[in-house]
Amino acid sequence: MQLALSTWQEVEEYLQTRSGIIVPIGSVEQHGPNGLIGTDHLTAEFVARGVGDAIGCMVAPTLAYGMSQHHLGFAGSATLRPATLMLVVRDVVQSLAVHGFRRFFFINGHGGNIASVTAAFDELYAMRSLGEADTPVRCRMKLWSDGPRTRALSRELYGDADGHHATCTEVSVAQFYQPQAIKQAQLAPHVAPPSGGFFEGADYRSRFPDGRIGSAPALSSPEHGERLFAAAVQDMTEAYQAFLAY
Amino acid sequence: MQLALSTWQEVEEYLQTRSGIIVPIGSVEQHGPNGLIGTDHLTAEFVARGVGDAIGCMVAPTLAYGMSQHHLGFAGSATLRPATLMLVVRDVVQSLAVHGFRRFFFINGHGGNIASVTAAFDELYAMRSLGEADTPVRCRMKLWSDGPRTRALSRELYGDADGHHATCTEVSVAQFYQPQAIKQAQLAPHVAPPSGGFFEGADYRSRFPDGRIGSAPALSSPEHGERLFAAAVQDMTEAYQAFLAY
Amino acid sequence: MQLALSTWQEVEEYLQTRSGIIVPIGSVEQHGPNGLIGTDHLTAEFVARGVGDAIGCMVAPTLAYGMSQHHLGFAGSATLRPATLMLVVRDVVQSLAVHGFRRFFFINGHGGNIASVTAAFDELYAMRSLGEADTPVRCRMKLWSDGPRTRALSRELYGDADGHHATCTEVSVAQFYQPQAIKQAQLAPHVAPPSGGFFEGADYRSRFPDGRIGSAPALSSPEHGERLFAAAVQDMTEAYQAFLAY
Amino acid sequence: MQLALSTWQEVEEYLQTRSGIIVPIGSVEQHGPNGLIGTDHLTAEFVARGVGDAIGCMVAPTLAYGMSQHHLGFAGSATLRPATLMLVVRDVVQSLAVHGFRRFFFINGHGGNIASVTAAFDELYAMRSLGEADTPVRCRMKLWSDGPRTRALSRELYGDADGHHATCTEVSVAQFYQPQAIKQAQLAPHVAPPSGGFFEGADYRSRFPDGRIGSAPALSSPEHGERLFAAAVQDMTEAYQAFLAY
Amino acid sequence: MQLALSTWQEVEEYLQTRSGIIVPIGSVEQHGPNGLIGTDHLTAEFVARGVGDAIGCMVAPTLAYGMSQHHLGFAGSATLRPATLMLVVRDVVQSLAVHGFRRFFFINGHGGNIASVTAAFDELYAMRSLGEADTPVRCRMKLWSDGPRTRALSRELYGDADGHHATCTEVSVAQFYQPQAIKQAQLAPHVAPPSGGFFEGADYRSRFPDGRIGSAPALSSPEHGERLFAAAVQDMTEAYQAFLAY
Amino acid sequence: MQLALSTWQEVEEYLQTRSGIIVPIGSVEQHGPNGLIGTDHLTAEFVARGVGDAIGCMVAPTLAYGMSQHHLGFAGSATLRPATLMLVVRDVVQSLAVHGFRRFFFINGHGGNIASVTAAFDELYAMRSLGEADTPVRCRMKLWSDGPRTRALSRELYGDADGHHATCTEVSVAQFYQPQAIKQAQLAPHVAPPSGGFFEGADYRSRFPDGRIGSAPALSSPEHGERLFAAAVQDMTEAYQAFLAY
Repeated sequence: MQLALSTWQEVEEYLQTRSGIIVPIGSVEQHGPNGLIGTDHLTAEFVARGVGDAIGCMVAPTLAYGMSQHHLGFAGSATLRPATLMLVVRDVVQSLAVHGFRRFFFINGHGGNIASVTAAFDELYAMRSLGEADTPVRCRMKLWSDGPRTRALSRELYGDADGHHATCTEVSVAQFYQPQAIKQAQLAPHVAPPSGGFFEGADYRSRFPDGRIGSAPALSSPEHGERLFAAAVQDMTEAYQAFLAY
Repeated sequence: MQLALSTWQEVEEYLQTRSGIIVPIGSVEQHGPNGLIGTDHLTAEFVARGVGDAIGCMVAPTLAYGMSQHHLGFAGSATLRPATLMLVVRDVVQSLAVHGFRRFFFINGHGGNIASVTAAFDELYAMRSLGEADTPVRCRMKLWSDGPRTRALSRELYGDADGHHATCTEVSVAQFYQPQAIKQAQLAPHVAPPSGGFFEGADYRSRFPDGRIGSAPALSSPEHGERLFAAAVQDMTEAYQAFLAY
Repeated sequence: MQLALSTWQEVEEYLQTRSGIIVPIGSVEQHGPNGLIGTDHLTAEFVARGVGDAIGCMVAPTLAYGMSQHHLGFAGSATLRPATLMLVVRDVVQSLAVHGFRRFFFINGHGGNIASVTAAFDELYAMRSLGEADTPVRCRMKLWSDGPRTRALSRELYGDADGHHATCTEVSVAQFYQPQAIKQAQLAPHVAPPSGGFFEGADYRSRFPDGRIGSAPALSSPEHGERLFAAAVQDMTEAYQAFLAY
Repeated sequence: MQLALSTWQEVEEYLQTRSGIIVPIGSVEQHGPNGLIGTDHLTAEFVARGVGDAIGCMVAPTLAYGMSQHHLGFAGSATLRPATLMLVVRDVVQSLAVHGFRRFFFINGHGGNIASVTAAFDELYAMRSLGEADTPVRCRMKLWSDGPRTRALSRELYGDADGHHATCTEVSVAQFYQPQAIKQAQLAPHVAPPSGGFFEGADYRSRFPDGRIGSAPALSSPEHGERLFAAAVQDMTEAYQAFLAY
Repeated sequence: MQLALSTWQEVEEYLQTRSGIIVPIGSVEQHGPNGLIGTDHLTAEFVARGVGDAIGCMVAPTLAYGMSQHHLGFAGSATLRPATLMLVVRDVVQSLAVHGFRRFFFINGHGGNIASVTAAFDELYAMRSLGEADTPVRCRMKLWSDGPRTRALSRELYGDADGHHATCTEVSVAQFYQPQAIKQAQLAPHVAPPSGGFFEGADYRSRFPDGRIGSAPALSSPEHGERLFAAAVQDMTEAYQAFLAY
Repeated sequence: MQLALSTWQEVEEYLQTRSGIIVPIGSVEQHGPNGLIGTDHLTAEFVARGVGDAIGCMVAPTLAYGMSQHHLGFAGSATLRPATLMLVVRDVVQSLAVHGFRRFFFINGHGGNIASVTAAFDELYAMRSLGEADTPVRCRMKLWSDGPRTRALSRELYGDADGHHATCTEVSVAQFYQPQAIKQAQLAPHVAPPSGGFFEGADYRSRFPDGRIGSAPALSSPEHGERLFAAAVQDMTEAYQAFLAY
């Protein structure tokens, strides 16, 4: 059930019996020579809607822009600063809480969002711990690719070649979701990334010249995407329901 | 050309010859008994992509959430506070300016965004006027429904019954874009709205009990939507090109 | 009744029967070769006090500084950034609401303030819509030159030569208010401004080299100012009373 | 030379040979039963203009609103929060620095502003110390009543009865500046204030029920005001010139 | 080499050859019935100084207060909000970068800081990726208890009874550092924590009534602390040197 | 009684009968050729703990970093911006107020903190004056060196040679507290400082090339420090008790 495709009266009715909502969040950032800039928000949205279809829960409009400062060395990447992203998360949660939503499950497509969004949750909780907010809200975020079924399938399909950014897994799911936008690119072989991470955009680009981190997305395919999508929907459905029950 | 469906190398190539980009912006807010909560961002996105298809310009991912505080009396509406929305606009523009984008044309689906987004543009310009920013950026925002062709067609189709919120025009375009989500609802006849506006959410709801302002969206249809969409794409294409040439 | 010239006990008495207040707001920015830098706040203050004298309503001290980033290419102009101006408006409204003021009517001398001040009102309303603020406040802003009598008289006196910045109208009213500061300057003939607006300060100056936009303020006179002032006081009195009654 | 009554070309000429400017700053807050709510900004403005007349230096429009949270227990008082006031000071200084102003001398009418405005100066200096700001600006603030001539005359006229808030000195100067607004009030005898200060508005009101702190402003007169004004103009002229020479 | 115990001339000399610095960061929060409120910042400081003593690197003064909103249900806990902590980290890094420090290694005593401090690093990097900051800074944060030697020793000493908050490990190190403050308390047996985490302070307290999460700190001793401290100093020395070499 | 060395249960017990707490605050900034960078926070902490030992009141962890922008011309100095420091003070006070603390006595080692911390107190009070905060908190700040006994002893020991920064007094107390870190340095004779203060870091350094302002800290000794410490503990104990009783 997509919030964007509902009327307010339908939402009112939903809230008679339920108080959970899924918020897809991603990024606008390069995903290597054959990955889409929208990969993270497209896949998060796709999986979130899959969960919505599976169990009839509400899915909010996608937060397409995330924390992607490290990708600004590549054309087309856009970032929200951490402080901005935190305010966005705060406002969306506070707004929906006005109507009676209480459980906010963020299905995340981008590891770079974790610190900022977690900090945003802490801001919301701090307001309540400090006695400023009357309404208790509870938030959780999961990477859609990080459930047990999806991880197992990624490993089976790609092993170490899945990599850490512009992964085979996410490229496959994006290909399944947007088949008209499958890109062909000559890809250098994947190499294991350095263990020490990266810093600002220029540093990232100097370490990972074509944008990928340790992945071989030439292996990706929409057929894989279909299977990975199904696994991710199951994983996220389970995680959402566990969250509601906690 | 959708940024989300491009690779960074495609964007790099685009920037060899062009520096303009369209950013669709809308809202997540009630649109009366038969209008979708996503009406504003769906229609802005649809028209923006239409322009992108028509002339091959770049279209950024949609800013779905806007300034909708006055709709918080209706379930499902979500707002960014003005200050938050301003930071979002700032960050998106600054990010894309890193790569060489210079002209930002916001196709807007929601009148309530105008003050905050204009103020955001002023913030960006102020940084440059005060000597803090090196890169000149130029921004303009237009309501997709406010070009000459679209206004004329709205008037022809609906006259005064188009209204001011949950207009027949926007409901029709949303129906054409998302035909699977056409809603049936008993609608009271439209009445002329008071001239003095509204204030916070509770005030809005007391003045406009079912959410509409002076509109009769029972008149809407996907067929109208198709014609209105074509007019809006033409209007916005013209406006975008005039902006680039200014 | 000027707040600045009252004692707290007089204000307390006023609040026994009334809850409205007028806040003049203007700018500190160039107004062409013969216009005063204080034109916008002086005229707003003058008209606001005129309304206060006419009907005995309370007039707050003038917010002299506004959003004038686009004038920073001309010596003496000063701006508050939009975010700063928004906080100023918020604090002034919240402070006066503590005492029982509920209706805030901003008499505005500067079009450049509209976005930021409207966004500030939205911030205040959002706090209430989100359940954070207990006190309902209602705000409205009007340009003093934009009422029916004043517009008609401007048109009669100047036609198109009134222009868009450093207008004949505002220069005349400032001359009537501050006759000791009437300036003589050789003025190039007015020319119609471009339709596409302006961006940061340097852009503004390149488009409008002496600061005016399409005006011929050599036509201004204190005698005109007297008539325009009378019209504006009537217009704003009517608008204020309509606001109180809404 | 008032900035508000100058044209941009006159300011440009001034800046050929000078880079100093005076900024009057006051407050909007109760001043006891016979003191005006505008006392602090009116007197600061009056003295600042007196210095401007005496030596031809530039005087910016008055910052009427200051940090007055402790007076919010009395009707009509309005405060900027410290963080807001700091941003106002920052923006005004940064704006004027664009044109070539470098020395900012704040003539202050309100002790409650000292912490916030000093902190604002520190913010500005910090930006430069941290390498963010290219333009060196120098700021100083003085209470207009705190120069040697004025203090001596206050002591001669009122001794301890001058008090700490709603002082005889400031009431007298306001009476000289705004003789049409001299108020009559029955005043309880002044009593020495407690040594430990005050906290929020309710606390202030409970300690100082009619708003004064240790003053006997029944002693005030416009004749005193004239002499005190002359002394203050001399003191502040001297202080401004010492600042320019430092 | 403690920054606090150095003169500026000694720091200047240090910077001739080195550009790294260690910043200890902890929290002020309850650590169960026998753990100290200062446990996290005391242990981080102790280990950081141990590394400083071992290899002569500079150690900044401890950031004692961290992000501890979830502990506010227990007396004495104090939190910085995430946004505040982020600004603190930004200012400290930017200040020290003025002098030539470039590598900032945060030795962390509190898992709750990770999101906020990581987001602060991202803010700093974003400023550079967006072209606002000239100076490249590089930051890394490690939990002192999370190196290989320390983890192994914790496991050997306590197994699962080490727990997740008020761990035996940290209580032991604090006891070794502050033997005069070893507390005796009757402790209920440790129980495995729920897997789903916690939200605001009241929620935390309802799940973990005496403050501990799954730990048995009755097992702690200063003798263990001595061994764990030695392991942690070795782990952190290695991690710091790897960071400098990256 | 140090908060850092207490358990939450001990704090809970303390709050049964008391609601006051001491917060030491200092700085991280150069103190001349023989003064420690940590002088201000070390001495404030030392005196605060001395008061805690004397009368059993609670002492919070030290806020080591303060507002030191003017010292950034000397290696090792670090500043919080005023706005950051204000948020830190706000968060610490609000957190401790959750548990029942109501009186916050800041023992300050650094004059440069006064404006920012006072402004932070005003922010807290403003929240209550504006009706946003339910809990009344009361704050006071004193320089530990500014009580009557300490001032008298400083004058007796050093006269004018005590100076204004890197004073003999503070250097002596630091030497008594940290005897292992007594530094030897050739010191130029002290000279009287200019009366007009200083601005940003570069300005400070040009006026005071070795960092001191008018002091002769070669006169300092740990023996003096012991006497000065005793005087300061007495002064601050008295001031704290007067504050509680006010």
